[in-house]
Amino acid sequence: MSYPLHQHIKKFVNVSEVDFAEILTFFEMLSVKKKDILLQEGELCRRNFFVLKGCLRLFFLKETGVEQTTQFAIENWWLTDNLAFLEQKQSSFTIQAVENSEVLAISHDAREEMLEKFPQMERYFRNVYEKAFATQQLRVKYINDYSREEIYLYFAKVQPAFLQRVPQYMLASYLGFTPEYLSEIKKKHLGK
Amino acid sequence: MSYPLHQHIKKFVNVSEVDFAEILTFFEMLSVKKKDILLQEGELCRRNFFVLKGCLRLFFLKETGVEQTTQFAIENWWLTDNLAFLEQKQSSFTIQAVENSEVLAISHDAREEMLEKFPQMERYFRNVYEKAFATQQLRVKYINDYSREEIYLYFAKVQPAFLQRVPQYMLASYLGFTPEYLSEIKKKHLGK
Repeated sequence: MSYPLHQHIKKFVNVSEVDFAEILTFFEMLSVKKKDILLQEGELCRRNFFVLKGCLRLFFLKETGVEQTTQFAIENWWLTDNLAFLEQKQSSFTIQAVENSEVLAISHDAREEMLEKFPQMERYFRNVYEKAFATQQLRVKYINDYSREEIYLYFAKVQPAFLQRVPQYMLASYLGFTPEYLSEIKKKHLGK
Repeated sequence: MSYPLHQHIKKFVNVSEVDFAEILTFFEMLSVKKKDILLQEGELCRRNFFVLKGCLRLFFLKETGVEQTTQFAIENWWLTDNLAFLEQKQSSFTIQAVENSEVLAISHDAREEMLEKFPQMERYFRNVYEKAFATQQLRVKYINDYSREEIYLYFAKVQPAFLQRVPQYMLASYLGFTPEYLSEIKKKHLGK
C-alpha cells in the first residue's frame, strides 16, 4: 500500500518512491492514545503533524477556563500552531488526540533540511497552505453570513465524517453552539 | 529604489535583479482609483493582486444586502479569493480599491508559468500562505476569546495604520461593530 503522505504529496507534485523514502526519514512516527497531548499551550512549538489515521484537535483555554476547539485534523491533514511553528515560539494552542491516532511529526529544522534537499516539496507545502488559507477565507464568510443552523448544515455537507467521529461537546464548541443546541439541530435534521 | 515586490520576495528567498526583472514580466501593472472594482463576486477569479501602494478590501454581500468586509490589503500584501483563484472558479467575494492604488496582478496561468521557470518562487509563496494561514488561526482565537473592545485594542496595536486609513464604516464592518460602537470605543481610548 502506498503511504498516505506519498499519495497526498502526489496530488501536487511528483516525488519518486526513492525520494519519498528519503523524505520520510525527516519525520518521526508517533502512535498516540485518545486524549494524549501532542503540544501544550505555552510550550515551544517544535513540530508540525500530519495525520495518517485518527483525529487531532487544536484548542485553547478561554479566559473563562473553557476549552475552545478551533480546528480538527483527520486523515491527510496537517496540524500545528503555525505561527509558533514558523517562528519557533511558544504555542497559543494545545493539540490533543481525539481518537487513538497514527501521526507523522516533523520538526522545524528537519523540515528546513528536507526542503533544502527536496525543493519540490516547497510546491507541496505552498499548495497545502494556499488551500488552507483559502478555506479559512470562506469560513470567515460563512461565520458572518450564515445562521447557526445553516453553518451546521454546511458543515454536515462538506465534512460529514466529523459529525460521526467527534465527541458532541467538542463539535458544539467548534461550531460555537451549546451542546443542547447542537443536539436539537441534529434531531431536527436527522434522516433528511 | 528597489521594487517593493523584490524586497518582499527577498525576505524569504534570494532572487537576483536579472531574475526579478524576468519575474516581473509575468505581472500586469494596474493603477486603480478609489472605489474601482478589481474582482466582482460571481465573476471568474482570474488574478491575484499584490499591493505596491494603496489599499484594497475583500467583501461580500450578506443575505441582508449589507457589504461585509473580511480582509484588507495594504502595501506588500497579496489579495484575491484564494479558492476561486486556485480552482479558477467564480468568486465568492468582491475586491475593491479603498484608496487610489498601484497594484501588480498575476493570472493563474502566468503564475504557473512563472513558478515553473523560477521554482524558488514556490518557497516565497509557501511562506506567504503559511504565514497568512497562521494569522487566520490566531484571528479565530481572538474572535472566540476577546471582547469587542479587546479586539479593537489588539487591532490598534498590531495594525495601527488601518485605523487612520480605512473609512470608519468599513473598519466597523470588518470588526463586526456598528459604526456607533466603533466611534464610542475610539473616543474612549483616544490619546491613551
